[in-house]
Amino acid sequence: MAVYVVGTYHSIVGRLEESVYDLLIQAGRGALADAGVEARDIDGIWVGNFSGGGFNSQEHLAPCAVEIHPDLRFKPATRVENACASGSAAIAAAKQAIEAGAAELALVIGVEKMTSLNTSGVTQVLAMASHWPEEGAQGMTFPGLFAEFAKGYQEQYQISPEELRVLLAKVAAKNHRNAAANPLAQMPWECTYEDILNRPEEKNPIVAAPLRLFDCSLISDGAAALVLASEDKAKELQNELVELKALAHTTDYLPLSKRSKAEFTAGRRAIHRAYELAGITVDDLDFAEVHDCFTIAEVLAYEAMGLTPPGRGAQAIEEGWVEVGARLPVNASGGLKAKGHPVGATGVSMAVLAVRQLLGRAIGHQIPGAEIGLTYNIGGSAVSNYALIFQRIR
Amino acid sequence: MAVYVVGTYHSIVGRLEESVYDLLIQAGRGALADAGVEARDIDGIWVGNFSGGGFNSQEHLAPCAVEIHPDLRFKPATRVENACASGSAAIAAAKQAIEAGAAELALVIGVEKMTSLNTSGVTQVLAMASHWPEEGAQGMTFPGLFAEFAKGYQEQYQISPEELRVLLAKVAAKNHRNAAANPLAQMPWECTYEDILNRPEEKNPIVAAPLRLFDCSLISDGAAALVLASEDKAKELQNELVELKALAHTTDYLPLSKRSKAEFTAGRRAIHRAYELAGITVDDLDFAEVHDCFTIAEVLAYEAMGLTPPGRGAQAIEEGWVEVGARLPVNASGGLKAKGHPVGATGVSMAVLAVRQLLGRAIGHQIPGAEIGLTYNIGGSAVSNYALIFQRIR
Repeated sequence: MAVYVVGTYHSIVGRLEESVYDLLIQAGRGALADAGVEARDIDGIWVGNFSGGGFNSQEHLAPCAVEIHPDLRFKPATRVENACASGSAAIAAAKQAIEAGAAELALVIGVEKMTSLNTSGVTQVLAMASHWPEEGAQGMTFPGLFAEFAKGYQEQYQISPEELRVLLAKVAAKNHRNAAANPLAQMPWECTYEDILNRPEEKNPIVAAPLRLFDCSLISDGAAALVLASEDKAKELQNELVELKALAHTTDYLPLSKRSKAEFTAGRRAIHRAYELAGITVDDLDFAEVHDCFTIAEVLAYEAMGLTPPGRGAQAIEEGWVEVGARLPVNASGGLKAKGHPVGATGVSMAVLAVRQLLGRAIGHQIPGAEIGLTYNIGGSAVSNYALIFQRIR
Repeated sequence: MAVYVVGTYHSIVGRLEESVYDLLIQAGRGALADAGVEARDIDGIWVGNFSGGGFNSQEHLAPCAVEIHPDLRFKPATRVENACASGSAAIAAAKQAIEAGAAELALVIGVEKMTSLNTSGVTQVLAMASHWPEEGAQGMTFPGLFAEFAKGYQEQYQISPEELRVLLAKVAAKNHRNAAANPLAQMPWECTYEDILNRPEEKNPIVAAPLRLFDCSLISDGAAALVLASEDKAKELQNELVELKALAHTTDYLPLSKRSKAEFTAGRRAIHRAYELAGITVDDLDFAEVHDCFTIAEVLAYEAMGLTPPGRGAQAIEEGWVEVGARLPVNASGGLKAKGHPVGATGVSMAVLAVRQLLGRAIGHQIPGAEIGLTYNIGGSAVSNYALIFQRIR
């Protein structure tokens, strides 16, 4: 059964004044208004949030969504959590509710308020998304885990430290450049990869070797929301329509020690399964929003998508394929690196950005004529993997 | 579309040696073995867990379930959280996945490891299930919130402190007596309500007036699991079958200040909606497992179920209706009060206990000939409400 997106909302991303409650409620109201649907017609609410407990002392966040409108009181509201893929997990649950016939209209909200803690506190909370006894409790951080990928990739494909550094700086520069055109982005300023490489050590320090500050995504507050609709309801609304054509979800072992460090093994499976469900190949994509929590992750995503063969991700950036206007624009929004990464909101943010591209509403960073887009969202060190394909219908 | 339970697992409840990971994995293996299904045939895993972050520094717990069996690697695994109703929330999500055609066989696990913290730490973590700014951060605890219900109920119906104390002691005594017959229970020892009333003050102190120690459920470790199946798959398996006949979920405002303190407003709606979906009334129930996190909650549950009119819950206990062997046995297992309350596991625990009653497998506390049972599980101060109706098929 087909599921459609009939309304979207996306907050500005950054250090925001709003509380987690305000962000949640604004996002829900925004998506309902955009969809032009009444609260009373919503059949259920799904909230993607990684760690309201850790960041805001608030578990059990979903019920706060009934305050979006008095008519939402008594409706089912559910929080779904799969680390930084919590937003996509909420979309997946809402999609299944519609396919099950349990909902005709579903409200999905992704939200995270991270700047309530300082950087050290945020690092601690994020580490709870790793395998705690084997990773977090051993002092391993998320920059550290993705540094393991960088080292594993380097070793597997015999890439020199200098080559890797240039490659990663080029990914960062592209995403900063893209963010400069996105009015929602947290770091909307242009830079070249030479700027990044030439920064003095103290302005681009090692965070977890070989990853430096400019390889890391941001600590962000933000929220995004979608209204999903069944086919009948979507037709009735007569909105411009985007179909959520495919959604694939795969899970790998939580500890990185049990998996390859040179590829996103389960990510590749999710993306290729989504292609199969949608009946497309990578060549049919007009753009992709992928999970560049660290620059190395974007390179591994090129390979997981099948855009380049394994070990050849550099080609996509060297030859400019992933630039806006080229073969397959990746992270036209600026990505997690420069648009920002309010972790539990990110999957919904990617979906909203994709839908707006397809509707010609990606203000400032529109890809002309986009018809099919992919979002690839991961939780943990590429443990929970979600690939979604959206297609413009009318 | 009908959804069936084809396998169950239930750990002993109490202060257990196992880690949250061990509990999760044992539960999953136990349910697969009981169902007689192969791991490769499982289409998805849903994990109900309230606060792995708060109790065990482990968010993103669902992926740990792929370690149940190598064939589960790459399968979708999702954590669902709605406070102490997280287990029912996981069942709801898995049920919808089956109804959506996204799964034929779903593994649902509820798990919580609470004794990793001391009582004060547990109280703090649980308080994150309240509205933090308005309740938890003001020093309000869960015993405090349910004491508000006790006071609200007393005031609304002009019940004297002594009458209330006797009523609540009778609920506690019934559940302890029932637990004595349940080999899985955390506090399997009999007591009478007179024993409770006659205890010296220091052995039954006020926790949050008017609630005393014996009005409170337990701090527990535990896990439970179910295998759910589509109709086709259930027929193929030829297991003894229980149908998950109805599931209703309602949400109320998170802060208690916005709601009645004399009834479970949204709970009543969930239960009556479940009756409607199943085409039954309260008189058709052979038993119920209800959310007695505090004794007052069980009394309010009688009224929400329609077993007695509002304000008359005492009649059910005074006249013995809710005893095993009587009109409608409630918490034959011992309930949260005496079986124990591993919070995120509780919804799945209730479901497993119900299914085993229906299959004649409720060792030690079987209700002869039970055909239809209700579980009523709540998250927060009756904020997230789930009512499930199970029926024996063959």
